[in-house]
Amino acid sequence: MVDMPPTPLLDTVRTPHDLRRLKPAQLRQLADELRAETISAVGTTGGHLGSGLGVVELTTAIHYVFDTPADRLVWDVGHQCYPHKILTGRRDRIRTLRMGGGLSGFTKRTESEYDPFGAAHSSTSISAALGFAVANKLADTPGKAIAVIGDGAMSAGMAYEAMNNAEQAGNRLIVILNDNDMSIAPPVGGLSAYLSRIVSSREFLGLRETLRKVARRLPRPIHTAARKTDEFARGMTMGGTLFEELGFYYVGPIDGHNLDHLIPVLENVRDAEEGPILVHVVTKKGKGYAPAEESADKYHGVQKFDVITGAQAKAPPGPPSYQNVFGETLAKLAETDSRICAITAAMPSGTGVDKFAKAHPTRAFDVGIAEQHAVTFAAGLAAQGMRPFCAIYSTFLQRAYDQVVHDVAIQNLPVRFAIDRAGLVGADGCTHAGSFDVTYLATLPNFVVMAPADEAELVHMTYTAAEHDTGPIAVRYPRGNGTGVALPAIPERLEIGKGRVVREGKTVAILSLGTRLGEALKAAETLEAKGLSTTVADLRFAKPLDEALIRRLLATHEVAVTIEENAVGGLGAHVLTLASDQGLIDGGLTLRTMRLPDTFQDHDKPEVQYDEARLNAPHIVETVLTALRHNERGIEEARA
Amino acid sequence: MVDMPPTPLLDTVRTPHDLRRLKPAQLRQLADELRAETISAVGTTGGHLGSGLGVVELTTAIHYVFDTPADRLVWDVGHQCYPHKILTGRRDRIRTLRMGGGLSGFTKRTESEYDPFGAAHSSTSISAALGFAVANKLADTPGKAIAVIGDGAMSAGMAYEAMNNAEQAGNRLIVILNDNDMSIAPPVGGLSAYLSRIVSSREFLGLRETLRKVARRLPRPIHTAARKTDEFARGMTMGGTLFEELGFYYVGPIDGHNLDHLIPVLENVRDAEEGPILVHVVTKKGKGYAPAEESADKYHGVQKFDVITGAQAKAPPGPPSYQNVFGETLAKLAETDSRICAITAAMPSGTGVDKFAKAHPTRAFDVGIAEQHAVTFAAGLAAQGMRPFCAIYSTFLQRAYDQVVHDVAIQNLPVRFAIDRAGLVGADGCTHAGSFDVTYLATLPNFVVMAPADEAELVHMTYTAAEHDTGPIAVRYPRGNGTGVALPAIPERLEIGKGRVVREGKTVAILSLGTRLGEALKAAETLEAKGLSTTVADLRFAKPLDEALIRRLLATHEVAVTIEENAVGGLGAHVLTLASDQGLIDGGLTLRTMRLPDTFQDHDKPEVQYDEARLNAPHIVETVLTALRHNERGIEEARA
Repeated sequence: MVDMPPTPLLDTVRTPHDLRRLKPAQLRQLADELRAETISAVGTTGGHLGSGLGVVELTTAIHYVFDTPADRLVWDVGHQCYPHKILTGRRDRIRTLRMGGGLSGFTKRTESEYDPFGAAHSSTSISAALGFAVANKLADTPGKAIAVIGDGAMSAGMAYEAMNNAEQAGNRLIVILNDNDMSIAPPVGGLSAYLSRIVSSREFLGLRETLRKVARRLPRPIHTAARKTDEFARGMTMGGTLFEELGFYYVGPIDGHNLDHLIPVLENVRDAEEGPILVHVVTKKGKGYAPAEESADKYHGVQKFDVITGAQAKAPPGPPSYQNVFGETLAKLAETDSRICAITAAMPSGTGVDKFAKAHPTRAFDVGIAEQHAVTFAAGLAAQGMRPFCAIYSTFLQRAYDQVVHDVAIQNLPVRFAIDRAGLVGADGCTHAGSFDVTYLATLPNFVVMAPADEAELVHMTYTAAEHDTGPIAVRYPRGNGTGVALPAIPERLEIGKGRVVREGKTVAILSLGTRLGEALKAAETLEAKGLSTTVADLRFAKPLDEALIRRLLATHEVAVTIEENAVGGLGAHVLTLASDQGLIDGGLTLRTMRLPDTFQDHDKPEVQYDEARLNAPHIVETVLTALRHNERGIEEARA
Repeated sequence: MVDMPPTPLLDTVRTPHDLRRLKPAQLRQLADELRAETISAVGTTGGHLGSGLGVVELTTAIHYVFDTPADRLVWDVGHQCYPHKILTGRRDRIRTLRMGGGLSGFTKRTESEYDPFGAAHSSTSISAALGFAVANKLADTPGKAIAVIGDGAMSAGMAYEAMNNAEQAGNRLIVILNDNDMSIAPPVGGLSAYLSRIVSSREFLGLRETLRKVARRLPRPIHTAARKTDEFARGMTMGGTLFEELGFYYVGPIDGHNLDHLIPVLENVRDAEEGPILVHVVTKKGKGYAPAEESADKYHGVQKFDVITGAQAKAPPGPPSYQNVFGETLAKLAETDSRICAITAAMPSGTGVDKFAKAHPTRAFDVGIAEQHAVTFAAGLAAQGMRPFCAIYSTFLQRAYDQVVHDVAIQNLPVRFAIDRAGLVGADGCTHAGSFDVTYLATLPNFVVMAPADEAELVHMTYTAAEHDTGPIAVRYPRGNGTGVALPAIPERLEIGKGRVVREGKTVAILSLGTRLGEALKAAETLEAKGLSTTVADLRFAKPLDEALIRRLLATHEVAVTIEENAVGGLGAHVLTLASDQGLIDGGLTLRTMRLPDTFQDHDKPEVQYDEARLNAPHIVETVLTALRHNERGIEEARA
């Protein structure tokens, strides 16, 4: 049992309305209690900790100064929103974070009116906030829209596109840059805070606008020079030139943990007649919790932990994760192949590219949160004779779909895609599920799409991809650990478009793609026990299909079932299309496709999610039995 | 017959190798002849003219200074590449541009070694060039990579992502910003050219690097100030601060039509040891051809025209285009519905949003080449109660797939997608074909996906979308003109997921989605003449399917065929999946799916492309007859 921290002041705050009744002098204590409560909660649940701790004061200040939820607060990514959830009526459920039926680990519209826009993928907040601001402008209503975005998220093109369009929002849009890498500029203590307060004040803004209006009436060269001088003067002290170039009024940098600095600046910004405004706030990830501050990753994502010591619960030892098998295999292949290189978009450890980078630092590229660039950069590398592996999560590869189509598939360039987090992903929920990649890739000409049934297969497929120089090839595999099979000492080059029969039977055929193979084999045991001789095939390839194998299995079994960790339009649709194209369904064919359901499933343990999705062994058995009964009834009816 | 311009010098230049043998003093004449030849060629073929004329001198200078094709030249978008094609061995085919079997209107790898990277979608060039540069760096080979990108293309996030990553290329990467809107800064004549030459010279770069090294040894605040002073001094004269912030060495602006300015600057840049370098070149779209220079759109895309007068061949009068029907319908609906607004990503006239913008300027948003932002911005508008229509071409919506999934579908926000250029598009070829949207949208939970059979249906569907407030909805329709049906005075709100039977028969059922309906009806006539009573249904919805109608048609006809202007995974796959899920195939079902082939089809007239794709009336007839024969044989075999 975890001790709950004493939080006498926080206990009086159920919503931001309660918060706004406090005196400014009380906010420091509130923030401290909010921090303690956040640490205690994440100690119980695990989840994202460092980011939330970094914005405890910012969260407090925003809700204190702005009229949420009427003013629309959009947290970018959303993994820093636990303190926000505590302050916005969700404290009673905060210890259910990321658990089945519990609170989401991100902002979510269906959860609270204080979450006007859900998130999880990076860099969407400015676009969304601009939508709120412009809608208010059109309706001539006064509400503000506030986007809080980290410096890392600023590397995505989407944030730049939004900033480029922000001017139309006028003073209804406020972007708070939460700079927790201090990658842009350090706040220089009191002077910086003083300057920020001055330049964000109504008086200064008014003066500046007057000067600008005067300048606009001057001949153009002088006007330009005046503008530049103004920018320069501010840029020298504050470093916001990039944002000024994009049309923002820049304020900062401010110490994001000092409420005495934050509150007056945010009040000025709120009341400013000029805009849009970018407030540059510098924070420290993990702030206020020593084990987090001292850790290299600032407790970005953690298991349950002991609040006193910071010791995280260790995952039980198990087979290696798919990501590490991929990274290590690729690193090994690269020892004898200087053309292999690896690209990741800000996910070096999540994709296993860190293992590759350690062995081959010059051939590993972390491009930041920039999936579009990652893919076309890889295409350029491939066009110049390299063998690039683009390692991106399934859900994030959606960010680069056009680059996959236009720069890779159309040009038939041999870019290798290592697609992690395919299928359901557990606690991160539907925003992170990799449900669509088989569909959106297998519809493209020239593509090869593979999925390994276990980590040994992943070794073979990684090697197969490396050797495949005639066009694009993708291998998609799940989050988490492999099955524990022995890893091959020497990887095998698989024949493109050839599956394998794992178990031969006569009546039922299960055609599996990916890691449902284990469930398929379990189902086969059960069916066998019921007297139904069962074949299980691992198709390996969603594209090109193993036509000969599929034809044979469909022709020689009474019932066939496909199964995949992907939504409609994937393997099952391609098998059905093949069966239809070749007239195999004309004479009657009992074929069913098992796939992810047509809903966005909430977060839960992966095995529970697959149960909900009806893709576990019992569901395979049930699908087969139902199909057989239907088939027999059909046959009987046909005979009658 | 068009008179060919005299081009004595150009006649001696077959490839850049010939060009590089000329004396600098001859280049002006060569450029003039190249311009005349470009005008003459496009006069014959139609195509993109203004962009090419703007870069005649730049094209000449680049090939003169750089060692193409060993140095990799990547044209962004590629519609400015006609002069480049003339200079790189393709002059003999230049009058086949965009015609079936002729040259592509864009760069294309399979066409020439001088096109190291194909293009057509905007803003990919820096990423690709960075790939070339880094591959050279890894191989320790000296080749340069040059990206030429327009100022408009710079608005896409992808370009920003690439620039953010460019530093690693060092001096192997050169980005030439072709600023033809003068949107960033005008070149200030001789002074600017002089400064550009100075700052790009090896001596200056060396001096600068020395100063930097000294500065780096100073304490940090002084170093920072020194850096800022350097940037400021250069920014004041040249305005490249944004690029400097992203890690580029900025040179410019230069008059892009003055070879005496261009050549020495490019030579300096080529030989610079510092990099990456951004060269800011200012050009004039349509330069050197009076009718183009005087036209509002600078002859961006033209029909065949008379070179003397500039008069373009008029398209024969015909039914209204889908884009205009959409734009006018939406404008009309918005008269009585203040929540309707429209978003386009740099395609106001191509999407018909210009019609809307004229009537409702405050509710029309052209966000520039920024599809990702467009979609999430629309999602924000929808979340604040607006009724946003996001009007984007099918192929460009691929750029925003993740935003469609993450910000719209998962949140079930009622963003309306008006998807133009669905299906095959003719002269623009496979890069612009809208072949995948039914597949990539219909796999998403919560989505409604519609396709009108004609322009009257588009009116109904636009209205249906406007009224649909419960989730995302898309309507996809082709490039070009409608069928000429009368437009309804009062639009009808269609029932979601309900198709219509256009023609009732008994033996054959054709299930059509979209504008293949006309071909389906033609095929029905032919089949009827052969004694096969034929039903034709317009399904209207790819998602949700009209299950009752489909079940009835499959149950009561001997053979059924689906047809759509989309690749595998779309309507046909969904109908097959339905038939499989419900066991309709178990007893035998002669169902075929007609769809786009699994290849990227080259440019040609759309009707020829659809012939190649085997999606015209004769192919429907053939598919039906083949299926029937197969079916009868199957029935006979079963009886035997």
